[in-house]
Amino acid sequence: MNQTSGSLSGTGAPGRPIGRRPGPSSTRADILEAARQLFAEVGFERATIRAIASRAGVDPALVHRRFGNKAQLLDAALRLPFNQAEVASELDASAGDEGRALLSMALQRWEDPASALQAKSILRVSMSNERAAAAVRDLFTREVLAMLAGRVPREDAELRAALVASQMVGLAIARFVIPVKAIAEADRDRLVDAVAPTIQRYLTGDV
Amino acid sequence: MNQTSGSLSGTGAPGRPIGRRPGPSSTRADILEAARQLFAEVGFERATIRAIASRAGVDPALVHRRFGNKAQLLDAALRLPFNQAEVASELDASAGDEGRALLSMALQRWEDPASALQAKSILRVSMSNERAAAAVRDLFTREVLAMLAGRVPREDAELRAALVASQMVGLAIARFVIPVKAIAEADRDRLVDAVAPTIQRYLTGDV
Repeated sequence: MNQTSGSLSGTGAPGRPIGRRPGPSSTRADILEAARQLFAEVGFERATIRAIASRAGVDPALVHRRFGNKAQLLDAALRLPFNQAEVASELDASAGDEGRALLSMALQRWEDPASALQAKSILRVSMSNERAAAAVRDLFTREVLAMLAGRVPREDAELRAALVASQMVGLAIARFVIPVKAIAEADRDRLVDAVAPTIQRYLTGDV
Repeated sequence: MNQTSGSLSGTGAPGRPIGRRPGPSSTRADILEAARQLFAEVGFERATIRAIASRAGVDPALVHRRFGNKAQLLDAALRLPFNQAEVASELDASAGDEGRALLSMALQRWEDPASALQAKSILRVSMSNERAAAAVRDLFTREVLAMLAGRVPREDAELRAALVASQMVGLAIARFVIPVKAIAEADRDRLVDAVAPTIQRYLTGDV
């Protein structure tokens, strides 16, 4: 399922899901979006492949053929909307200020409605099913660690990555999952100024 | 419903729900716990007063008499497990280091299994119903703001409170809702050291 990584972000303009070409790719994107919707609405158990296929307007057999079983579809649907290579190059370009770069990228991506849907579906699934929660958490941890590889001191890389994730997840929740006015309505730059030092300290500072 | 504030924490030793006397108080606590369980398991719509009463081993009429309608029961069940007066006196005693005090108290409280259940039920309810989410968010914002009243610069108090909440919620999620190993298994003091400077900066620093 590696080829799905970054499928929400493509390689180009931030904040828009690109790379949706007509034909097979568009079907793939439709299935993933339907999966995110259903997972967000009813959790893991109750989101059947049949219901997801129906929402996407395709045959259930096609969903199985493309994505395998429901756990594999979940995995594909919940990947972080980041292109690892793109993130790496942004971070390389802002050494010493990676916290700001990471946060700016995230806040920009989050303006895409697909991100809000994905965040809701990640949380909803994590609430409803322990095994799905474990899968989400492992995927998330792996992706964040991969993103930060070589940028944080090796001996406490896991704690640093988890701290970064804890602030980013809390911010995402307040920004668009359970919107808290002061954060949901704040200018992006205002939030970056307020939170970047936190991320930077977790990455490279004294923890 | 003001009298329910702090019902999880009582006024004494941290980390334990106290004040559960035999008789009416114990029934009240049983109903609140059953409500948290059901809200966490099935969300707001599907947690009926009847099911909550049955889980608590009481008559549905008693639940209505004690708590009013389901929205009012939700409000009582999801109040933060903090005693405002106790928090205020702890914060007063640690001026200049309120971030550490707040975080220590929270991490200590979270060791009570009732806290984990409450956090799950807050998140689960917020995911499943927009109106319930709004109610939870308003309650949460109000309580955090009340807790910080007079301690943060007035003109951006709401943003500061929201930033504190974003980090605390993210940490609570990683500590026990969707346990991320590096945070879930970290010593309390280790986490306090790592995160207190963040909370302190959001409270009184440059944001």
